[in-house]
Amino acid sequence: MAEPFADRLIQRTRALGHPLCVGFDPHLALLPPLFRRGSMAPGDKQTADAVAEFCLAVLDRIAGRAACIKPQSAFFEALGWRGIEVLDQLMRAARERDLLVILDAKRGDIGSTAEGYAAAYLSADAPLRADALTVSPYLGGDSLEPFLAAAEKSGAGLFVLVKTSNPGSGDLQDREALGQPIHAHVAAQLAAGAPRLAGPATGWSGVGAVVGATYPEEARKARERMPSNLFLVPGFGAQGAGAEAAVTAFSAGPDGMLEGGVVSSSRGILFPDDADVSRADAWGKAIDQALADACESLERAVKKRGRS
Amino acid sequence: MAEPFADRLIQRTRALGHPLCVGFDPHLALLPPLFRRGSMAPGDKQTADAVAEFCLAVLDRIAGRAACIKPQSAFFEALGWRGIEVLDQLMRAARERDLLVILDAKRGDIGSTAEGYAAAYLSADAPLRADALTVSPYLGGDSLEPFLAAAEKSGAGLFVLVKTSNPGSGDLQDREALGQPIHAHVAAQLAAGAPRLAGPATGWSGVGAVVGATYPEEARKARERMPSNLFLVPGFGAQGAGAEAAVTAFSAGPDGMLEGGVVSSSRGILFPDDADVSRADAWGKAIDQALADACESLERAVKKRGRS
Repeated sequence: MAEPFADRLIQRTRALGHPLCVGFDPHLALLPPLFRRGSMAPGDKQTADAVAEFCLAVLDRIAGRAACIKPQSAFFEALGWRGIEVLDQLMRAARERDLLVILDAKRGDIGSTAEGYAAAYLSADAPLRADALTVSPYLGGDSLEPFLAAAEKSGAGLFVLVKTSNPGSGDLQDREALGQPIHAHVAAQLAAGAPRLAGPATGWSGVGAVVGATYPEEARKARERMPSNLFLVPGFGAQGAGAEAAVTAFSAGPDGMLEGGVVSSSRGILFPDDADVSRADAWGKAIDQALADACESLERAVKKRGRS
Repeated sequence: MAEPFADRLIQRTRALGHPLCVGFDPHLALLPPLFRRGSMAPGDKQTADAVAEFCLAVLDRIAGRAACIKPQSAFFEALGWRGIEVLDQLMRAARERDLLVILDAKRGDIGSTAEGYAAAYLSADAPLRADALTVSPYLGGDSLEPFLAAAEKSGAGLFVLVKTSNPGSGDLQDREALGQPIHAHVAAQLAAGAPRLAGPATGWSGVGAVVGATYPEEARKARERMPSNLFLVPGFGAQGAGAEAAVTAFSAGPDGMLEGGVVSSSRGILFPDDADVSRADAWGKAIDQALADACESLERAVKKRGRS
């Protein structure tokens, strides 16, 4: 078995000094001129090739500078089966560059179907192997079990949706049952399961939780409920949350800096405003600058809060 | 725009006299000897070819005898990108045979990501176009909106998870909030949205709900809450629910027979016990018999309850 995901992730964020995760959301409409080819119709081979070239070019610029990437499965699925081939290529290339992969697919199903998803993404011999997968809890505890079992075997991790960053997240997640919002019940379940994917080196657990950066108060409460579960915090940058809000639920590690998960930025790094150019050098500089800005603001945030 | 999904589906179930939907869950381990090739490793081309041949052979036997098929995305994803190519092939072949396709993928995400999933599966030009898609409600009402908007445009349908068939479905779905279980809150939202995908010819709505056959009492209550929403009822056959339980939430149509959705059987039809043979004629007979049995028991159930 590989080293548990939680240890692999936290060791990387400690070494880098920040918890940045680069989201790969290759919106076709946002692809810069430099990479566009033909009509960019969603199912075409040319389109898939263009997206692959774009993703690999970004990957080369972030290798060594981020702990992990978070490909968003939807944007690859939107290209048809060729898009999944691109996703496969991207995940393999990330592994070669020592970047962990959190596949954001929000899967969830029951029994043998959940086993099918786990076999697709989490097993040691998974054809689309990721280091961790995002999962939805709507179907209940038994639906998470096959994912947990596969992750235990292979050293992978999970991030279960707890409190998401969208305005409508309250519709279901905030409803009070037995005096607690639904997301607190999910959190309790994940806290109870934490020992199953615990990393002995860092004390963190790969039974992770998705906790949006747009609700800092909820995020702090979520950390109280799940003291050792890794958090995946999306919504940094494009969705409007700042670096300090994003790490609000992190806690001080052995070096005094805040740790306990990753903070994901997608559009802000993939599609900075000044990267909409047709010259490769200008494009590369724009990506590097966006990446440097994100790293620096997160570095400051984990130091500042860690010292206070 | 195509005719609304709800009308297309109900017109087919009326013409056939039963609401059978054949689930395509191609478990590798269950593939009969007739179709097995090589080592059957999950990511291999040979394996994907074997699964494609199996799925298309089953499809040919059910064309004209069922209203729709329900491919389970997990089992295709478990074969890697080549599995998605097989799914693509299967969905196109179903359309050519006038079978509707409900893709069981339980997707759910927010904003532009949900738009990505809708573009993948529901738009008129979707590369992996299905007639309807299963969706998870955990992220809230705004997360369903992009799916609804795409379905309105293209004439597709949705089936949102309400009360699922697994033993652990109560963990989250049955929790009481404001005196009602969570699944009742989801149901209320779907009932309110029903007019958006209403079929003028039949009065049914393509804002559908997944309601398991294993909780008939809950299913009846769900029908009261959602009088015009189509139901997708999984768990008929292999998960133990009988035909009468499966149609318990259907209501009498213009011909007096029960209608209002589809009942899905997967393993019972794809992998009948006596189809584990290496002769094509014996395999074909076993599939035909399993299909005939499922159709007949559902025909009896919709007539019996319809008359009472």
